[in-house]
Amino acid sequence: MTEFLPLHDTDYRGFASDNYAGAHPEIIAAIAAANGGHQIAYGEDDYTARLQEVMREHFGDQAEAFPVFNGTGANVTALTSVMPRWGAVVASSTAHINTDEGGAPERVSGLKLLTVPAPDGKLTPDLIDREAWGWGDEHRAQPLAVSLTQTTELGTLYTVDELKAITSHAHSLGMTVHMDGARISNAAAALGVPLRDFTTDAGVDILSFGGTKNGLLYGEAIVVLRPAASDGLRYLRKLNMQLASKMRFVSAQLIALLTDDLWLTSARHANAMASRLRTALETAHPAGLSFSQQTQANAVFAVLDNAIADRIRERVRFYDWDRAAGQVRWMAAFDTTEADVDNFVAVILEELGR
Amino acid sequence: MTEFLPLHDTDYRGFASDNYAGAHPEIIAAIAAANGGHQIAYGEDDYTARLQEVMREHFGDQAEAFPVFNGTGANVTALTSVMPRWGAVVASSTAHINTDEGGAPERVSGLKLLTVPAPDGKLTPDLIDREAWGWGDEHRAQPLAVSLTQTTELGTLYTVDELKAITSHAHSLGMTVHMDGARISNAAAALGVPLRDFTTDAGVDILSFGGTKNGLLYGEAIVVLRPAASDGLRYLRKLNMQLASKMRFVSAQLIALLTDDLWLTSARHANAMASRLRTALETAHPAGLSFSQQTQANAVFAVLDNAIADRIRERVRFYDWDRAAGQVRWMAAFDTTEADVDNFVAVILEELGR
Amino acid sequence: MTEFLPLHDTDYRGFASDNYAGAHPEIIAAIAAANGGHQIAYGEDDYTARLQEVMREHFGDQAEAFPVFNGTGANVTALTSVMPRWGAVVASSTAHINTDEGGAPERVSGLKLLTVPAPDGKLTPDLIDREAWGWGDEHRAQPLAVSLTQTTELGTLYTVDELKAITSHAHSLGMTVHMDGARISNAAAALGVPLRDFTTDAGVDILSFGGTKNGLLYGEAIVVLRPAASDGLRYLRKLNMQLASKMRFVSAQLIALLTDDLWLTSARHANAMASRLRTALETAHPAGLSFSQQTQANAVFAVLDNAIADRIRERVRFYDWDRAAGQVRWMAAFDTTEADVDNFVAVILEELGR
Amino acid sequence: MTEFLPLHDTDYRGFASDNYAGAHPEIIAAIAAANGGHQIAYGEDDYTARLQEVMREHFGDQAEAFPVFNGTGANVTALTSVMPRWGAVVASSTAHINTDEGGAPERVSGLKLLTVPAPDGKLTPDLIDREAWGWGDEHRAQPLAVSLTQTTELGTLYTVDELKAITSHAHSLGMTVHMDGARISNAAAALGVPLRDFTTDAGVDILSFGGTKNGLLYGEAIVVLRPAASDGLRYLRKLNMQLASKMRFVSAQLIALLTDDLWLTSARHANAMASRLRTALETAHPAGLSFSQQTQANAVFAVLDNAIADRIRERVRFYDWDRAAGQVRWMAAFDTTEADVDNFVAVILEELGR
Repeated sequence: MTEFLPLHDTDYRGFASDNYAGAHPEIIAAIAAANGGHQIAYGEDDYTARLQEVMREHFGDQAEAFPVFNGTGANVTALTSVMPRWGAVVASSTAHINTDEGGAPERVSGLKLLTVPAPDGKLTPDLIDREAWGWGDEHRAQPLAVSLTQTTELGTLYTVDELKAITSHAHSLGMTVHMDGARISNAAAALGVPLRDFTTDAGVDILSFGGTKNGLLYGEAIVVLRPAASDGLRYLRKLNMQLASKMRFVSAQLIALLTDDLWLTSARHANAMASRLRTALETAHPAGLSFSQQTQANAVFAVLDNAIADRIRERVRFYDWDRAAGQVRWMAAFDTTEADVDNFVAVILEELGR
Repeated sequence: MTEFLPLHDTDYRGFASDNYAGAHPEIIAAIAAANGGHQIAYGEDDYTARLQEVMREHFGDQAEAFPVFNGTGANVTALTSVMPRWGAVVASSTAHINTDEGGAPERVSGLKLLTVPAPDGKLTPDLIDREAWGWGDEHRAQPLAVSLTQTTELGTLYTVDELKAITSHAHSLGMTVHMDGARISNAAAALGVPLRDFTTDAGVDILSFGGTKNGLLYGEAIVVLRPAASDGLRYLRKLNMQLASKMRFVSAQLIALLTDDLWLTSARHANAMASRLRTALETAHPAGLSFSQQTQANAVFAVLDNAIADRIRERVRFYDWDRAAGQVRWMAAFDTTEADVDNFVAVILEELGR
Repeated sequence: MTEFLPLHDTDYRGFASDNYAGAHPEIIAAIAAANGGHQIAYGEDDYTARLQEVMREHFGDQAEAFPVFNGTGANVTALTSVMPRWGAVVASSTAHINTDEGGAPERVSGLKLLTVPAPDGKLTPDLIDREAWGWGDEHRAQPLAVSLTQTTELGTLYTVDELKAITSHAHSLGMTVHMDGARISNAAAALGVPLRDFTTDAGVDILSFGGTKNGLLYGEAIVVLRPAASDGLRYLRKLNMQLASKMRFVSAQLIALLTDDLWLTSARHANAMASRLRTALETAHPAGLSFSQQTQANAVFAVLDNAIADRIRERVRFYDWDRAAGQVRWMAAFDTTEADVDNFVAVILEELGR
Repeated sequence: MTEFLPLHDTDYRGFASDNYAGAHPEIIAAIAAANGGHQIAYGEDDYTARLQEVMREHFGDQAEAFPVFNGTGANVTALTSVMPRWGAVVASSTAHINTDEGGAPERVSGLKLLTVPAPDGKLTPDLIDREAWGWGDEHRAQPLAVSLTQTTELGTLYTVDELKAITSHAHSLGMTVHMDGARISNAAAALGVPLRDFTTDAGVDILSFGGTKNGLLYGEAIVVLRPAASDGLRYLRKLNMQLASKMRFVSAQLIALLTDDLWLTSARHANAMASRLRTALETAHPAGLSFSQQTQANAVFAVLDNAIADRIRERVRFYDWDRAAGQVRWMAAFDTTEADVDNFVAVILEELGR
């Protein structure tokens, strides 16, 4: 048997994104355990059946999970399933579906996005109302769904009450609520409540459950929380090219993630590492560094001089968020260590002249 | 660490599909070796860079590979990249893009398929000509590409000369040639020639290189063989929801497959198992069993009574192909053993009353 | 006021297509009568309201009409309104939606067409069954509608009984039936029955009612015959770019057409002229001329030598239908005169050497 | 011959929209003159040929016109022709393509709109820069075109210099410039310059030339001003269901409009009537009435109490623009008379308590 050697430095970890991390070793182990023999393809396997049970433990007896490949696929397919062809989606202008999916919602499904500015990435009933109007007027794309991200793209967190206010408002307008939960585990860890408290029980209708950013090789799941809200997901997943033939391996990863609290342990750790970074920097309080968002989960949004940011980046990788505003994003992952954080703090302070 | 146990019988193998099989152990090993540390997401990792070199060794210096999640994604994205919005694709009516992709070509990319009947699944210049006409007439979807499958959905094989005749004809008409190579390794094994002999050097412009059916967990690659034929693949892969964030793992699998001839060894084995099955049955020559296609790679298409087929299926799983015609499909995979074949032969003969 | 002079020879009439003809003078008069003053745009005008009454007289109390610009718009929008995103349409391979709409069904609405060969352009329950299967299998585009053309693209005609057999069969399979009635008036004239006998009362669910080919300047109507079959037409018409702002003029034309039997008189005349042409040629029975379809409405499909056809065409314009087969199409229009026919017969016979 | 009587009050004219008006009598005359005889369908007629010459007189020797049915069709088809599938359009958030086309750009062509707020409806290079970034990043829909409306949806007008600044900026970024000219004639009348001064010569690449709002029955034209900017319009017009079979009648109307300055006379008149309305109200200066936009063409945007607006509307019809802000829109048309304006002023003042 060929021996495979890494092509990269397996000791290097930066703060660019939680999807720069690899897979949790338990995930690899779960895949290996699911390997061997033949299993029915395309979702009729034993792992996908079991995943339904696991998901129901977390999201209630009505939940139904549809494993897919990636987050864009989950979001676009979930949203398409809750809307007729003439529907439009109200979302924050910073939503991933608006800024980072290459126009997939519009191009693949013809979804019109009605975006509203949200400085902290969070929708509110008032913000939704800016675009939630015009039903019955065929000239206006019909606002029939709200999509929100938990935790948000800006690292912020909806409280359970905030979510209930949104879903209640949306439902009163006849709109369906989708949650982009690419980092839903980090949200649960931050809120300190079970998953269903801020999803099913908070009135969310359909969910993109994130796996990849929390230690899977690949794989997310669309979870339908209110069956009547969604239609045709089996067909849509296929025609949206998100139906895995060897689905057992997506399901086995998701089962492993949701077993023995791996999802929560990993997310708590990532959150703690972001918190450690933020706290250390706030304590050091160097000149030339401030923060543009709260750190409520595993992201730190900081503001500093572009040139200094670039020098730091040469040593530890991360992304600019808004270069004109000097805003950068530092993400912790499930595998970020305390030493990684401490070293990064040291680098930042050093480059800031401390 | 949680210990994961299989949920299924890892000793069971049937003849339903090569994607009922799991992953080759070397593939799991390659993933494990690529794990750990942080790597740039979305394709700027070291594995995807290395994959380019590996692909060029097989397909020539012009080749460029774009890893994607699955075959439907590869086919639709590849075809879209070679066509304007008004283009149409000439294909066999039995082509996977026509029969098994849930309408994804039409729905995701608006691709009109112009299909022609091909009893053995193989296009010819004459068959192409049935739909290759009407250029310049805006009422007719413009036939600008040919898509063929190697090996075909009916288990048959194009010779190098047949492929050259098709590409030469298509090019003379200004059409681009796409090859759906979901089972390209089986084709190479059957032809006994290097991959480039019947792809790049035979005039194929763009290829869907199959991995999943030959022992990957997941993952295929679009391989552009003639750069001028294709445009915007980076953007199309993203907007078609086929851009993996942790792409290193798709690339690491493809590298492993293409290293030390794993691709070829696995494919040869699958082909040999199909051949063993066919030969054993032809030798036994039981009444009530005939064959509707040649066995040129890893598929056996047989004809037998529906009721008997159903009894066999209760013991070893496989698919009907055309129930009205009593046609069934028996597929061998990389992990099919000689004992699996011999047992299946015994079951078939027993149920046929021999 | 500027005086406008024709730029073309207003005495020339050929046999190329019924849309080479202009508008019936009564249609121009109806437009002039509807002109002046202000009327609410986009369909809330008095003419569109009246059109509903007129349509209900012809198609029954459940009928609702949605005026649109052209036949492709009517067909695509009607079909989209009866199908989810995963639906497919069973149609004859010679259907206008398959051959002459530039791929609009696939590109605009992602409609997969499942086509079957029909030598005389007519579907039957048996032909439908060739593609009506696979419900519940997400790999197969779901056959949820049948689209048939009356009169067909080959000039043939469904009887009332044939239509009832099709709709009954389709409904038993859970499929919706769309009729492309670009030449529905010619069909009514040929059948000698009221419009509703072979539409509403024959089980057709939704209709593209043709106006342009029967003497309108422009304009067709989607007519929903069974309200439950269709959804969202108001929105779909708009987003399919088929919503006329000055809709009063489309409606005024359709009202005029359906008043005092203008629709029927014009269609009967066109049919009679095609019949006169066919009869004269059959009577003359020249060598080198045969007929490939019955003449049941306003089309004559003839077979003759290409070179002779080209010489005839230099004198009177018409289209090849299938040049390889020497098949040509001769269409009569509402304004075709007996003298036009007699002259054309003379030209044909002369060029055939009679 | 049936005599047709109007179904509506042909003396009633309001201020709701310029498309509430009917057709100019010269347009009806032009249609009648083009009637009779047979002309090749789908654009190969003598009127469409002549239209090319007429358009070139106005827009320069490179111009090519493609008649279509309506404005949404013109905009979507024009924009699609200048963009690959991954392109996005920067536009004002008040642009018709964003607010009033039912999502057609997204749904029909997958066009992502990147909108920026523009209080007076006018883009500027700075506003464009808010969304014109991120080229080469496949996660971001690629900003490859700018679409601006002249005159704008808010009744304002770009100067020639403003347009040149925009096109020069856009071109420097590799972006194509589309002008939605639904009211281009009103713009020319207001600017007092030839059409080409603020289109072709100002660097606009492709134009939606408006006819319906300036007295046509129906019909607009896409005018390609820089041939290299656009691709495949013939095909796109067909597959976007905008190809008129009896195109001679669209072209005949456009020729009539552009002959003897009918376009300019009508637009000047509409502008003058809006100006008369604005001036009379400003002179009267009633309490409770103000204006939210300049009146630079044929629209007056006023602010007044909703209840009073509703009372006025009961007597003379018009639209709310932003009910929350008490903003209404009063449009003059080619057929608005001085008496209509004076009566409307009297009604407004009366209801305002003057």
